[in-house]
Amino acid sequence: MKKNFFILCFAVISLSVTWAQPPNDDLHSMPEYVHNSHRKIIRIPDIQGFHTLKCDLHTHTVFSDGNVWPTIRINEAWQDGLDAVAITDHVEYHPKQKYVVGDLNTSNTIAQEKADEIGFLLIKGTEITRKKPDGHMNALFIQDANKIKVEKAADAVEEAYRQGAVIMLNHPGWPDNKSTMDTMHIRFMKEGKIKMVEVFNSKSFYPKVVGWMNEYNLAPAASSDIHDLISHRHPADTDIRPMTLVLAKDRSLEGIKEALLAKRTLAFFNQNIVGQKEWVQALFEACLPIKMVVDNKKKKRYTFEICNNSDIGFVLKTKNGTEILLRPNSIYRMNIGYKSLDTTYEVMNAHIDINTHLVTRLPFAKALHK
Amino acid sequence: MKKNFFILCFAVISLSVTWAQPPNDDLHSMPEYVHNSHRKIIRIPDIQGFHTLKCDLHTHTVFSDGNVWPTIRINEAWQDGLDAVAITDHVEYHPKQKYVVGDLNTSNTIAQEKADEIGFLLIKGTEITRKKPDGHMNALFIQDANKIKVEKAADAVEEAYRQGAVIMLNHPGWPDNKSTMDTMHIRFMKEGKIKMVEVFNSKSFYPKVVGWMNEYNLAPAASSDIHDLISHRHPADTDIRPMTLVLAKDRSLEGIKEALLAKRTLAFFNQNIVGQKEWVQALFEACLPIKMVVDNKKKKRYTFEICNNSDIGFVLKTKNGTEILLRPNSIYRMNIGYKSLDTTYEVMNAHIDINTHLVTRLPFAKALHK
Amino acid sequence: MKKNFFILCFAVISLSVTWAQPPNDDLHSMPEYVHNSHRKIIRIPDIQGFHTLKCDLHTHTVFSDGNVWPTIRINEAWQDGLDAVAITDHVEYHPKQKYVVGDLNTSNTIAQEKADEIGFLLIKGTEITRKKPDGHMNALFIQDANKIKVEKAADAVEEAYRQGAVIMLNHPGWPDNKSTMDTMHIRFMKEGKIKMVEVFNSKSFYPKVVGWMNEYNLAPAASSDIHDLISHRHPADTDIRPMTLVLAKDRSLEGIKEALLAKRTLAFFNQNIVGQKEWVQALFEACLPIKMVVDNKKKKRYTFEICNNSDIGFVLKTKNGTEILLRPNSIYRMNIGYKSLDTTYEVMNAHIDINTHLVTRLPFAKALHK
Amino acid sequence: MKKNFFILCFAVISLSVTWAQPPNDDLHSMPEYVHNSHRKIIRIPDIQGFHTLKCDLHTHTVFSDGNVWPTIRINEAWQDGLDAVAITDHVEYHPKQKYVVGDLNTSNTIAQEKADEIGFLLIKGTEITRKKPDGHMNALFIQDANKIKVEKAADAVEEAYRQGAVIMLNHPGWPDNKSTMDTMHIRFMKEGKIKMVEVFNSKSFYPKVVGWMNEYNLAPAASSDIHDLISHRHPADTDIRPMTLVLAKDRSLEGIKEALLAKRTLAFFNQNIVGQKEWVQALFEACLPIKMVVDNKKKKRYTFEICNNSDIGFVLKTKNGTEILLRPNSIYRMNIGYKSLDTTYEVMNAHIDINTHLVTRLPFAKALHK
Repeated sequence: MKKNFFILCFAVISLSVTWAQPPNDDLHSMPEYVHNSHRKIIRIPDIQGFHTLKCDLHTHTVFSDGNVWPTIRINEAWQDGLDAVAITDHVEYHPKQKYVVGDLNTSNTIAQEKADEIGFLLIKGTEITRKKPDGHMNALFIQDANKIKVEKAADAVEEAYRQGAVIMLNHPGWPDNKSTMDTMHIRFMKEGKIKMVEVFNSKSFYPKVVGWMNEYNLAPAASSDIHDLISHRHPADTDIRPMTLVLAKDRSLEGIKEALLAKRTLAFFNQNIVGQKEWVQALFEACLPIKMVVDNKKKKRYTFEICNNSDIGFVLKTKNGTEILLRPNSIYRMNIGYKSLDTTYEVMNAHIDINTHLVTRLPFAKALHK
Repeated sequence: MKKNFFILCFAVISLSVTWAQPPNDDLHSMPEYVHNSHRKIIRIPDIQGFHTLKCDLHTHTVFSDGNVWPTIRINEAWQDGLDAVAITDHVEYHPKQKYVVGDLNTSNTIAQEKADEIGFLLIKGTEITRKKPDGHMNALFIQDANKIKVEKAADAVEEAYRQGAVIMLNHPGWPDNKSTMDTMHIRFMKEGKIKMVEVFNSKSFYPKVVGWMNEYNLAPAASSDIHDLISHRHPADTDIRPMTLVLAKDRSLEGIKEALLAKRTLAFFNQNIVGQKEWVQALFEACLPIKMVVDNKKKKRYTFEICNNSDIGFVLKTKNGTEILLRPNSIYRMNIGYKSLDTTYEVMNAHIDINTHLVTRLPFAKALHK
Repeated sequence: MKKNFFILCFAVISLSVTWAQPPNDDLHSMPEYVHNSHRKIIRIPDIQGFHTLKCDLHTHTVFSDGNVWPTIRINEAWQDGLDAVAITDHVEYHPKQKYVVGDLNTSNTIAQEKADEIGFLLIKGTEITRKKPDGHMNALFIQDANKIKVEKAADAVEEAYRQGAVIMLNHPGWPDNKSTMDTMHIRFMKEGKIKMVEVFNSKSFYPKVVGWMNEYNLAPAASSDIHDLISHRHPADTDIRPMTLVLAKDRSLEGIKEALLAKRTLAFFNQNIVGQKEWVQALFEACLPIKMVVDNKKKKRYTFEICNNSDIGFVLKTKNGTEILLRPNSIYRMNIGYKSLDTTYEVMNAHIDINTHLVTRLPFAKALHK
Repeated sequence: MKKNFFILCFAVISLSVTWAQPPNDDLHSMPEYVHNSHRKIIRIPDIQGFHTLKCDLHTHTVFSDGNVWPTIRINEAWQDGLDAVAITDHVEYHPKQKYVVGDLNTSNTIAQEKADEIGFLLIKGTEITRKKPDGHMNALFIQDANKIKVEKAADAVEEAYRQGAVIMLNHPGWPDNKSTMDTMHIRFMKEGKIKMVEVFNSKSFYPKVVGWMNEYNLAPAASSDIHDLISHRHPADTDIRPMTLVLAKDRSLEGIKEALLAKRTLAFFNQNIVGQKEWVQALFEACLPIKMVVDNKKKKRYTFEICNNSDIGFVLKTKNGTEILLRPNSIYRMNIGYKSLDTTYEVMNAHIDINTHLVTRLPFAKALHK
């Protein structure tokens, strides 16, 4: 009974620990975290028949100017609940070279072993690094980073493209706080060689770039560009790291690459979504199933429950300026007059163009016919 | 732009508030909570084709010895994410009668109006209240509590039964810390008049009563028996209220009553589940889908991810005494040798008889064929 | 040893529960919350030799239009970490009178018994309740609420004043979203009969009223005006209830009354402070001790650590528009050039007049001489 | 006004972010975490006139078998609220030497630069690493790790001792789950060359070693021995890293070294304290000031409030087996009969010998005379 009592107590008290072996005077050991064996669930629904894969396409390690061993990037991404991560050390910048040696593929090689061990998707990448106007560009799905080390940025892009890489323009507003691109970038965009752009990088948002997404037909991205620790930059209690939501036909490297090439991405930074209207709209609706719970014939209104089953909150603004908050992982109750079923809302945290939000109906009418 | 900037900032910072009108010098007002318009999602899956409804079948108001107005019980239950609540004021105990008047149906009448307004399920109940050996019994789904006010406890039970009530034996271990029942209770159980029993009440667990569940074919219940505030007794950051999981054919009062009469319930207190083996097993499996992520041919083992998508954690114990924790809302990674796919585990927080846990396989083999 | 093991485990796992008696098959019971025996510590420092008492001067019960028994208001305030609470049921509004009877002093009489039992300070109050322009006024420290039930609002104020009450103008912006007062109020202010005004009520803030505080020499207040549950209106994870910080010579009812009459109060709503410049400045400095940790002679700058040991966060704005966040209960590191020790900051959440923030130095120079 | 409104809103909503510059279409940037500028306050009181310094005396970097750059260990320790950290890379174990080069002092040299920049205390250390029976020993406050690289463990200890190092026996229960030491260790202890021992290492506790503390007059230590990330091993929401509480005359490296040599330490792992009775008792009392709030002459009892102003919870056990929980950062209310003021309690999470807890009075009588 004593044992049983313990277990009950144990189970009751919020399940914080478990034991690898019966404790004794030699050793009481709590094994769970030792093996880093748990990870979070990020709740973002699949849409339009695609898997919504959570990807961070921009990270660094000690093999360029980051401060962690490549395996840490895999562990962090796994524990954060992501589906894939890219390691994109700088081709040209190696401030730790006095102490850290290896070629330009080493960080990915080391990380790949860890990824294979735990069944995680690692995208082999590198960052082509110049001062503005060339700026920084990530090459994702590369074959050999060493070959990308060439004098001119444009040649590096061409080489990466030859290797089959997906190329992304990084943090256009850094380091001069001006969101800029160069004629070289425009040329590569038009040639289909640059296919992506970061609208979020680390803690920054570049509103102008949401316009570029439409103007140049680019897939939007949100990247951590992490050099230190995710847990310090994006503490779990107040923040989550930026991520690119990739709408993939299957959960594989091939699936991700195909989706990037087809520009099926959304950029998600904490509670803001940036993307083509089609995908933003689809995500919005998938997150928010609606149920009618009261038909008040006297007051001529319905009461609906909007069940936000996702980790994304939404801020809706009505025409008269009232704002409604649909918190993540909760249910919101709303009274709607019989005549107001077709009201449109501006979704203040869903960005489909520069300073332009998604404007949409909530499918109340449809909910009546379920 | 200024506006837009605000909104971004606003949306970014974890979506804490929204505004009912554009603030000005007269008034800045944050409307959200004013209307109590959000509620939690409790993540417990439906099983075996039934809806898993979360019910608290035992609460009190100022109309007996509770300390809140009946509408509070509805609001609390709605916000806590429940599907239904019963108000079960004592037939015989009215310590506030100097100040609070009304008949024995009043608390339910007042609460029903609120329930109708927001679309919530209220079960009309009352508590037949005697000292031990008669003890306390809840009559649920009653017609008229006034008629249940009779001298003898047995007659009160008969009257409730005549009204079509489902009758439950309450907190058998209270107030003497002995889990007891009387010949009257046994008789009513055999006659099918007492159909339920509390294995959890407030902060107490009665292990012996898990045995009675099997011996007398009773539906197990977990009740808050709340007199004061749920938020004080079960603070949201460390605890959740006890609840009876009712496996109902549909989400309605009729659905709940049918399920209680058919004894399709589980008692859930924080992280412990009590019930018939069939339902406990089904819930366990529904909470824990498994996916194979690595087939390591060299080490002759698989790596699996067990995705606990529910709010219930599970503690598994292997034959050699190791304990494994499957935390709520997280994914656990596990290496299993080719030859160990059929290992059984004791589920330490799943109780199917007195001091007896569910022992079961994890469906690893099945996961290989997906 | 087994026992010891349990206790270790038990203690280790975040100390969630304890047991009233050794559990057995009859009963496992967790006693802690049953007796509501824990309360929060609100960390706000004493200033200028006064005790900083946390008070909610405006609450309701079932004896007017509230929804809880008076004892709940005492329990809530005790658990929330307050020093005192006033129960201020409406003199004139009794929507529950069909079911709840008693005279106008009853709610305070019932609550007083609970307050005495646990050693908590209850301020006997009532709310004089008229439509605008008279509006609502709280009379605090009254003798007999029944005598305040007279036809005219002005006569009610005079009667309360005769009883020695401190009178407060409530929520000037309610219900018409216009912050207004009437010639009657101005007269009473000039006569020293109205001494306080709410700048925060529930979820509302009245910026204009911060101006009145100075113009009419009123003590500012922040009140919950709670009718339902504090935990629903101000959920512990995102919010804390509004409170009036009373700078008292001693921790007693007399001490509070003396301080109110002397207008030594600050209104605190979540992270915003409103008050006379003198007290706001004193509180700001008391919350933020500073320590020099590096003297970098090469870069000609110091590094300071500002230790915010309080539950109040502060937002500082520099002249160039940069904002600095001094989070509650944390330490902020700041580099300051030798020549910038006298920089002034605008404290964006410290309000000393209508739309006017405290502007102040941080005492860096002083920190060098410690 | 718009600006003001924003700031209010901003400040109100739990102060999550602030801005480095006025956001615009080019860039919205949140600077706070970018510079890692905030750290936690760990609330553990100073005792007996000593500063209670929070130290982690055992960590690793990529320069042995750790997975982070040395600067990360400084940042982690600073943000976690510690006062000092030791970097103790293995003398003999360098699995990353193919990619990471440098001598045995390099990790401390790199870390020292970061420590100087932010004003943090780094203890230069190394780990002498052999298989059992020699096992692992930390040498703290060394001069030159390169000289400690000698064939025999005993010679390495002698060399470290010559350099003035404080030597600690590490994780006696690893890797064989037996808490053992060797004749060499005993000899060094008797000679005063080994002065410390880990009773907690990572997630392990060695009960036997609490006995050694007394038998061999050793200063107890609790170390993270972190190789990966503190935030993964000890997630902030459920755990804090092990730490050695050093009772120092001043807040400096010299102060720490003097205290270690004088054996004034306590080992603190999450909620468990291990140490000499004198210091454990002093810490217990310093954490728990008591105030009398009711003298109930009728019931012949006092009501006390015990204010646990620290981050350490305490579990008290009375003679009849009842357990009382004094939660961290909260106030506990307790009724004590006039005749029970001298009751003793067993403090279940305060360990003064093998399987032996502190037994002590609570100073109720003293509280009456305040």
